[in-house]
Amino acid sequence: MYQTYGYAAQDAGSPLAPFEFQRRDLRELDVRIDVLYCGVCHSDLHQARNEWRNTMFPVVPGHEIVGRVAEVGTGVTKFKAGQLVGVGCLVDSCRTCASCGEGLEQYCENGFVGTYNGNDRVSGEVTYGGYSTQLVVDEAFVLRVPENLDAAAAAPLLCAGITTYSPLRTWGAGPGKKVGIVGLGGLGHMGVKLAHAMGAHVVLFTTSPSKIEDGKRLGADEVVISKDPEQMKAHLNSFDLIVNTVAAQHDLNPFIELLKRDGTLTLVGAPEHDHPSPQVFNLIFKRRRLAGSLIGGIAETQEMLDFCGQHGITSDIEMINMQDINDAYERMLKSDVKYRFVIDLDSLRK
Amino acid sequence: MYQTYGYAAQDAGSPLAPFEFQRRDLRELDVRIDVLYCGVCHSDLHQARNEWRNTMFPVVPGHEIVGRVAEVGTGVTKFKAGQLVGVGCLVDSCRTCASCGEGLEQYCENGFVGTYNGNDRVSGEVTYGGYSTQLVVDEAFVLRVPENLDAAAAAPLLCAGITTYSPLRTWGAGPGKKVGIVGLGGLGHMGVKLAHAMGAHVVLFTTSPSKIEDGKRLGADEVVISKDPEQMKAHLNSFDLIVNTVAAQHDLNPFIELLKRDGTLTLVGAPEHDHPSPQVFNLIFKRRRLAGSLIGGIAETQEMLDFCGQHGITSDIEMINMQDINDAYERMLKSDVKYRFVIDLDSLRK
Repeated sequence: MYQTYGYAAQDAGSPLAPFEFQRRDLRELDVRIDVLYCGVCHSDLHQARNEWRNTMFPVVPGHEIVGRVAEVGTGVTKFKAGQLVGVGCLVDSCRTCASCGEGLEQYCENGFVGTYNGNDRVSGEVTYGGYSTQLVVDEAFVLRVPENLDAAAAAPLLCAGITTYSPLRTWGAGPGKKVGIVGLGGLGHMGVKLAHAMGAHVVLFTTSPSKIEDGKRLGADEVVISKDPEQMKAHLNSFDLIVNTVAAQHDLNPFIELLKRDGTLTLVGAPEHDHPSPQVFNLIFKRRRLAGSLIGGIAETQEMLDFCGQHGITSDIEMINMQDINDAYERMLKSDVKYRFVIDLDSLRK
Repeated sequence: MYQTYGYAAQDAGSPLAPFEFQRRDLRELDVRIDVLYCGVCHSDLHQARNEWRNTMFPVVPGHEIVGRVAEVGTGVTKFKAGQLVGVGCLVDSCRTCASCGEGLEQYCENGFVGTYNGNDRVSGEVTYGGYSTQLVVDEAFVLRVPENLDAAAAAPLLCAGITTYSPLRTWGAGPGKKVGIVGLGGLGHMGVKLAHAMGAHVVLFTTSPSKIEDGKRLGADEVVISKDPEQMKAHLNSFDLIVNTVAAQHDLNPFIELLKRDGTLTLVGAPEHDHPSPQVFNLIFKRRRLAGSLIGGIAETQEMLDFCGQHGITSDIEMINMQDINDAYERMLKSDVKYRFVIDLDSLRK
């Protein structure tokens, strides 16, 4: 067993606080990782505060993890000590269902094992995430992180990156395609960078005129203020794909109307209360589609990391110490971050 | 000009009544058709009563038309006098936009010309539909009807048939696919027949236990009472495609939950008031899609008619005289028809 230092919420009403625990002894295919950096995802806050009403306390959040391999189990073939690696939202799945067979472990028919707040398939123990100094994960769920990327800025790729990369690939973003990204936050800023690197014509939708300049810097060909009906009207019936990263409840119709025939509006954020109903006429008259998309499978996450390595893409981050996490949550709630907090785990080792 | 006898509504509050008018002299590419039969679609009633608030009165409804070619213009090459032909919901489109170029005239970017309540692209005159003894239509929008089919029972293929055929083809219904059809009315009963003929495993969803037997007779492998949560639960996560023909406002979530990963729920009926909002989690966690589909293009409508000729598929109909149309509307509102009224236009010639 490996003594580990982390931060946990003990119940829905308490701030995160220091928490010591043991990581399991290595199984044959396990990789032990010294965590270097962990991104701060909005899901972490939802779980810490039990806003999805399924949190098992204490909870150690964190699923945007980059570290170096410290040790490997006797059967491990894919990794060696010293390698730069990542772990995202999944640490296991049933590996036998149709979705797992197709490399889409995020849609495992029997339920994937989350990096935190999941149950280990062998021991049944609750999984603890990346707000901690080390992690033990089966090699099948460990990713290679390109060494040319800044390790801290690469951490958010493991969730924010793959969550936007996967729908862009699924619905064919690329040269000749007009792609919209709704919202410029942790997910949206990755969506803009990735869609731009894929060669699509990228339009960022934001409600904040203050974000126009940054949107263009990040790779948007155009920025549209979505509250302005005139600006929206100029883009009617023109998009192949719009990836909507906004989780707050809002009217989807103004975006559905911007899709061309057979275009898709993909939601990657789940609101606490459902969006108002989309108008059926808006779907029928252009054979448009409304869809959802959830992170990505292991193979696609590796593909995304390799793509980011080739294109030099990482997240725009603000580094914090582990001790600052509660303040960071408050700032995240106010969208006061450009565009992702990343925890330096050395702050727990001092 | 050709003296024509039809039935029209003079305003939203009046019943349909006899109406005489002139069909245009043949243009070079026009086909004059003696109408034999015309199906009665729910849209006819919506338009006659101005329920979509866009009716130009007087309105002569009818867009499920089968007849014989009486005469052709000097440039017509596709048709000869005596041929059995059909006309559906469209009689023209811009023919230059991307959708028209792909043979998807129903999605014409400049707006297709409806068989009734449209505006002729040359003269600007309001189009009159198939509740009439003859019709003049450009050959590009005239379909060949297989001679082996019963002409009266083939009429509803021109709208109810293509409206269900098109989404079944678009989303790949066929052997090895599990396909749901929601609702057993004019559209639904065609959906069951067509999906069965395509080789799919067909499940009919209905709220009426009285329709189980008929559903199976029409080709459903299984019939599920959609109000019964236990029956619904047995089909969770199992459908590739569900075509929802129910236009009345209802909760879509119980059907979305039945889709497997990457499955699609396609709406072909537009409710007067939008359905309650679908739950975003239900879309995200299986990458499911909600879509709409509108009738079909000319090429696909011909493909559907040929398919029906090969498989001997027509609509189950109840024949009426033109003079009975107002009673038929009342019965249609009570779903008291199995499964489509078809008008015998000889009743106007006597």
